[in-house]
Amino acid sequence: MKLSYSRLPLTLRDTFRISREASDTRENVLVKVVDETGTEGIGESAPSRFYDQTAATVIEDIAGVELDQFAEPFGLELILASLSNRFGIRRSGLAAIDMALHDLVAKRLGIPLVQWFGLDRYACPPTSFTIGLASLDEIRRKTEAASDYKVLKVKLGGEQDREIVAAIREFSSVPLRVDANAAWSLHEALEQVKWLRDEGVELVEQPLAPKDYDGMRRLTEASPLPIIADESSETAEDVVRLRGCVHGINIKLNKCGGLREALKMVHIARAQGMQVMLGCFIESSVGISAAASLSPLVDYVDLDGHLLIRDDPFEGLTLDDGRVIPSARPGLGLAMNNPGLGLAH
Amino acid sequence: MKLSYSRLPLTLRDTFRISREASDTRENVLVKVVDETGTEGIGESAPSRFYDQTAATVIEDIAGVELDQFAEPFGLELILASLSNRFGIRRSGLAAIDMALHDLVAKRLGIPLVQWFGLDRYACPPTSFTIGLASLDEIRRKTEAASDYKVLKVKLGGEQDREIVAAIREFSSVPLRVDANAAWSLHEALEQVKWLRDEGVELVEQPLAPKDYDGMRRLTEASPLPIIADESSETAEDVVRLRGCVHGINIKLNKCGGLREALKMVHIARAQGMQVMLGCFIESSVGISAAASLSPLVDYVDLDGHLLIRDDPFEGLTLDDGRVIPSARPGLGLAMNNPGLGLAH
Repeated sequence: MKLSYSRLPLTLRDTFRISREASDTRENVLVKVVDETGTEGIGESAPSRFYDQTAATVIEDIAGVELDQFAEPFGLELILASLSNRFGIRRSGLAAIDMALHDLVAKRLGIPLVQWFGLDRYACPPTSFTIGLASLDEIRRKTEAASDYKVLKVKLGGEQDREIVAAIREFSSVPLRVDANAAWSLHEALEQVKWLRDEGVELVEQPLAPKDYDGMRRLTEASPLPIIADESSETAEDVVRLRGCVHGINIKLNKCGGLREALKMVHIARAQGMQVMLGCFIESSVGISAAASLSPLVDYVDLDGHLLIRDDPFEGLTLDDGRVIPSARPGLGLAMNNPGLGLAH
Repeated sequence: MKLSYSRLPLTLRDTFRISREASDTRENVLVKVVDETGTEGIGESAPSRFYDQTAATVIEDIAGVELDQFAEPFGLELILASLSNRFGIRRSGLAAIDMALHDLVAKRLGIPLVQWFGLDRYACPPTSFTIGLASLDEIRRKTEAASDYKVLKVKLGGEQDREIVAAIREFSSVPLRVDANAAWSLHEALEQVKWLRDEGVELVEQPLAPKDYDGMRRLTEASPLPIIADESSETAEDVVRLRGCVHGINIKLNKCGGLREALKMVHIARAQGMQVMLGCFIESSVGISAAASLSPLVDYVDLDGHLLIRDDPFEGLTLDDGRVIPSARPGLGLAMNNPGLGLAH
């Protein structure tokens, strides 16, 4: 098989702010794998500075990957295991290769990837749609414009948390998920969860610092709302470590290294009695389609990355009654909107 | 889809003794699932009295299963989840249906089941071959006859343990695995592991009572040999409970309920830093082929059930340099040796 890649610049619909940063564009990396039959699989890396990755580090990691020794994609479990050491903790590039191999395998078999996982594409739960940090007027406008979605998500952790939630509640009464991106102390979080419960909030994501296991444990014992680990929950080993510390975990393909690791995390979380959320970064339909192929397995879907950009180069996903439904075509089932987009080795 | 089943009597090559029982025959249950294309999948239930199951209870559990509402096998994750409540802790019948659906899916896709799992059939580790409890002369004879195998396994836990190991060592120096089937006290086990290490034993399976977690933990801390849980390790939840108590787990499809649960157990064990063994009961090539399809994922393979019977009704597995290799044909890749064997609903 042959691997190629290209930078994938994406333009955001609105400036995206979380408690750590703000941005108008993203640069992801698109990966393509072609096998001996000429069948192509694609995957997407969405590097995050929080995980010490950029498009440049992803390309550095991917550039030397040789798939020539593998004629076929079917042994992908072993192929991916052989690559994982190379990527270490910078797993975003590995995620793109993992997606591309899965796309390729399912295309070779002539079935949608969701079906390869033994799942039904119509069993996807509704996605949340993120209302990014902004002025209160912008938040009101964004909330009003998001009436197609069954669940909203908001990034809190600043000075105006109560005003932001009040502004959303002026225009929407749907379940609301709160992501604090590690911005609170235990004391603050214990206060916030009580108030947030009264505001119809469904869950709170990563209220505390990623490694504050003791704080998470104490918060989880006291919280009337599910506490979901995101930055704390990168890989399968983290899910083991989080047993008893949180109610659930947020899995992102670009955080854990792809679909195979994600599936392991689902299995471990379930056996530990934990809830599962499936999230994303700012991604095109490539990364979102891959994640959506696992979404029938999870409790909470947060796959709106492709809805937050103006220039998604691919089509194939549908939005049906608030749910992100993967394509019925083989593999990820995507077609390119912009055939001019090059893929260089 | 339509489900049918039949009793599957099996005749042992030698009387089989473990510390709990002895027998010359087994009665398993064969399950067949046919989908709307007329493609057939087969699976095997190997009920064990230790888990309160017999062919009669399996048939009782399976008889009312209706698969009519499912036209296709591809949604097997959801199909199996919908059936699992019905089986409760009697998971051997569920295992047979799980295998049949996997056989059917992989046949529909035209690939061996091992490939559907992303694995390579030639990556299977060698299997152990079990020397059953018998007279010392019989043990010598059985050991001499087992020279094709790279690993032997012996059931200990009686009065003659040292004599048995000595008899095996007269004729073989290959790595030896010891299965005590919960026959020892902690004190006995602590003594035995020291002696067994000196006899070239590779691991000790289930030395203590299944729920003696504290004893297992103390033994594991002190043992120079890996301690592997078998009777303690039925399902994914058990693997979570065993963290820190043992070095590894033995997964059997008929104990856990099939391939999907088995895969979850592998994932959990790995994330917890545990070793994995894949075992079996007395089974025909049907159950063994299903298990062998996962064997490239594990450290220790103990898939000799079909080698211990005289009248395996199926063919397709090969024994290559001590390894049980699944068929290269689609699905489980089995053909019936005995076409007269009926499958009644």
